[in-house]
Amino acid sequence: MIVVSNVVNLSPNRGRTSASAFDTLLGLVADDLDAVNRTIVAKMDSPVVLIPQLAGYLVASGGKRLRPMLTLAAAKICGAEGQRQVELAACVEFIHTATLLHDDVVDESDLRRGQASANAVWGNKASVLVGDFLLSRAFELMVADGSLRILAILSHASAVIAEGEVLQLSTANDTETDEAAYLQVIEAKTARLFAAACQIGAVIANRPSVEEQALEQYGLNLGIAFQLIDDVLDYSAVQETLGKTVGDDFHEGKITLPVILSFRRGDDDERVFWRRVMEDLEQDEEGLDLARAQALMVRHGALDDTVKRARHYGDRARDALAIFPESPVKSALLDIVAFCIERAY
Amino acid sequence: MIVVSNVVNLSPNRGRTSASAFDTLLGLVADDLDAVNRTIVAKMDSPVVLIPQLAGYLVASGGKRLRPMLTLAAAKICGAEGQRQVELAACVEFIHTATLLHDDVVDESDLRRGQASANAVWGNKASVLVGDFLLSRAFELMVADGSLRILAILSHASAVIAEGEVLQLSTANDTETDEAAYLQVIEAKTARLFAAACQIGAVIANRPSVEEQALEQYGLNLGIAFQLIDDVLDYSAVQETLGKTVGDDFHEGKITLPVILSFRRGDDDERVFWRRVMEDLEQDEEGLDLARAQALMVRHGALDDTVKRARHYGDRARDALAIFPESPVKSALLDIVAFCIERAY
Repeated sequence: MIVVSNVVNLSPNRGRTSASAFDTLLGLVADDLDAVNRTIVAKMDSPVVLIPQLAGYLVASGGKRLRPMLTLAAAKICGAEGQRQVELAACVEFIHTATLLHDDVVDESDLRRGQASANAVWGNKASVLVGDFLLSRAFELMVADGSLRILAILSHASAVIAEGEVLQLSTANDTETDEAAYLQVIEAKTARLFAAACQIGAVIANRPSVEEQALEQYGLNLGIAFQLIDDVLDYSAVQETLGKTVGDDFHEGKITLPVILSFRRGDDDERVFWRRVMEDLEQDEEGLDLARAQALMVRHGALDDTVKRARHYGDRARDALAIFPESPVKSALLDIVAFCIERAY
Repeated sequence: MIVVSNVVNLSPNRGRTSASAFDTLLGLVADDLDAVNRTIVAKMDSPVVLIPQLAGYLVASGGKRLRPMLTLAAAKICGAEGQRQVELAACVEFIHTATLLHDDVVDESDLRRGQASANAVWGNKASVLVGDFLLSRAFELMVADGSLRILAILSHASAVIAEGEVLQLSTANDTETDEAAYLQVIEAKTARLFAAACQIGAVIANRPSVEEQALEQYGLNLGIAFQLIDDVLDYSAVQETLGKTVGDDFHEGKITLPVILSFRRGDDDERVFWRRVMEDLEQDEEGLDLARAQALMVRHGALDDTVKRARHYGDRARDALAIFPESPVKSALLDIVAFCIERAY
């Protein structure tokens, strides 16, 4: 595969800064996170062995546990006592995992991605059903916790995620999709769960609604920034250097902001190209089309400007936390914004 | 396709009796059921048009609404006032519809069924995501109702359904599956939702736990009987006469009680046959293998005996209602058991 030299201009000290920000947050919630991991293993158990097998494959496959960490940190910044946040953070991770499992279900036309995702190993049906189990189990855990407010926040987030995924399906392969429609999709499918994960921290601690809203806004904007960067990394050579996959979105014809900006800033010839590769999914096997897409993104500054957009949402996330007094966990939550934007992986 | 004359010996007056039992129950809950249908249409709405489109396709495709009718009838037998049962009956139907959508998601090997199921029209991914939306929406509705007890019953049912479906996946194509394992599957994937649908009627009406349990047992046993008959009808010529599909379970290699009984009662040659068609899924295109399967079932009385088993669970369902005083709705619930067992469709 031919790859253009396409390293996005992120921050100068990115690798170092980000990793340490993540480790700092991790250190602050480490004990609770261990308990979350134990809860996850215990609650995904079932006499039907395929369930812990498949769920374990996904859970063990190295997720960063960012969402449950946010719940734990949000509970901490609100001074929550007790252990409710542990089970609820596990719920958040279950909802996320169920989404991943269902998101990986492919239609025939997508089979060429052919990665060793859970559905590639166990089949579509098992992925769907184990996802259903995890989602239902999450609701059982929430019911056991007993807060109707938290149930309302997370069941709403779950409905919005599904709605966002369907919306994404509808806009897929449509090069006319604009930035507003794209933002609507990523807010629903990614940022809403970040928002809910943070918001429930304030509910657990019985804090006033102004803190609930602040954490919700923090999570929402962080989630948007996170997804914007995810969409940049799908075209970025940094990924390739690290041995990760580049081009999944491209091969699926997924219309993300780098494509939207390039399409709109490009000339007629370029739009013919974008329509062929994204709408008709006519792409060469050698990767020349992907390389051209990457080159066009660089030429039009589409990747850099997507990162710039991410920084805007990152700024809003940080400002949302202004109402909280200084504390180690507040600093960590502020720094994790940079981690999400400048992450090299 | 060659079909043996394979009409199962059901009750003498089946067509007539059953239809009128269904209509009687329908008449008793008609007003509430209209309200349920309106709730379903209102709550599956979304600005993402694919959602009401796909959900509407399934909802309009002629389901009998048996499960929500059971919730309405159970609430009525318990003397429930108000309208809570309407929204909760809609939840039950949403959970059921989500299950149907996810159950239809096929792996490549199943594509030969090729019916116009939702996933055949819109693709696997849309079916999965709209199913997720309906399930999440069901939880939102339950949260709005505000009963943690009902949330516990239905979230547990939902987890058990998913568990049962995964279990079915694990036992699929395994001719060594025994009757106990099969019962475990159908209790989980079908009967638990019947049980929950009935049980919540008592919770809505604030009735003592003895009535809750009676309705749960009624629903559970009715659900088992219902699924046993469903599995009979998949091999029964009656289906074919009515223009319905016969042989779906066979083509999938699904191990249902008619197969289990035939396999165990058969000789070595027959077991070689069963292993070839159910385990290796080597089946001819002309339908001779299906015809042979049907003939073996008749020879060994496997269909008649499966109906007999269904009658046993039907009897238990009826007896569970003994604690309730006589009333039109009680009579209707008793008669609906016969409807489920003797139904010609």
